[in-house]
Amino acid sequence: MGTVKRSETTPVSIGEGRTRYLGYTDHVMIAVVDFNDGPSLEPDPPHSHPHEQVSYVAAGEILLILGTAKTHLSEGDLFTVAPNVPHAVQTLTKHVRLIDAFNPIRRDFLGK
Amino acid sequence: MGTVKRSETTPVSIGEGRTRYLGYTDHVMIAVVDFNDGPSLEPDPPHSHPHEQVSYVAAGEILLILGTAKTHLSEGDLFTVAPNVPHAVQTLTKHVRLIDAFNPIRRDFLGK
Repeated sequence: MGTVKRSETTPVSIGEGRTRYLGYTDHVMIAVVDFNDGPSLEPDPPHSHPHEQVSYVAAGEILLILGTAKTHLSEGDLFTVAPNVPHAVQTLTKHVRLIDAFNPIRRDFLGK
Repeated sequence: MGTVKRSETTPVSIGEGRTRYLGYTDHVMIAVVDFNDGPSLEPDPPHSHPHEQVSYVAAGEILLILGTAKTHLSEGDLFTVAPNVPHAVQTLTKHVRLIDAFNPIRRDFLGK
């Protein structure tokens, strides 16, 4: 893979106003996720996955729901998600960009 | 770990004008690395590590040296580094922020 230039990449739609593009090795993946549908009136439905996740808030502000905890996060903040812990995001700004890192890689994002 | 708020975190110095702060689970780590010593006249010396790495350019521009390839990268671009491949960065702007994701986690960053 080596490099993934934003200008040469077509992010995939993952819902109305939301896109994702990826960079990955065998065991670590970064998903760059843009939310242009915010701010949201309520959080997305909680979801979970067996993958470990560490995320960086690159733009905007969110309310993170992690299990039963709710935390207001903004640019520069990080959060971690252990396997199978339900989590959800409510966007608080018009645009939000999250940098989501996963291990193992999200093969479901690759259609595999 | 859960959340790491930038405003409540003291990044550690990793050299003149350079700092790092971390978020991690058992198997994936994000290091937020700020370079405030740029632009640099030449690349840093190449380094390598057995960890797989995927990085996101969050601010600024860099020249990435990956093996023998040199690539100009800017905000929004990604790059990947396979285990033990020598790589180096030359900062091309006054400030650069990289979001480096690793598996396994960099225990050397934890002093372990």
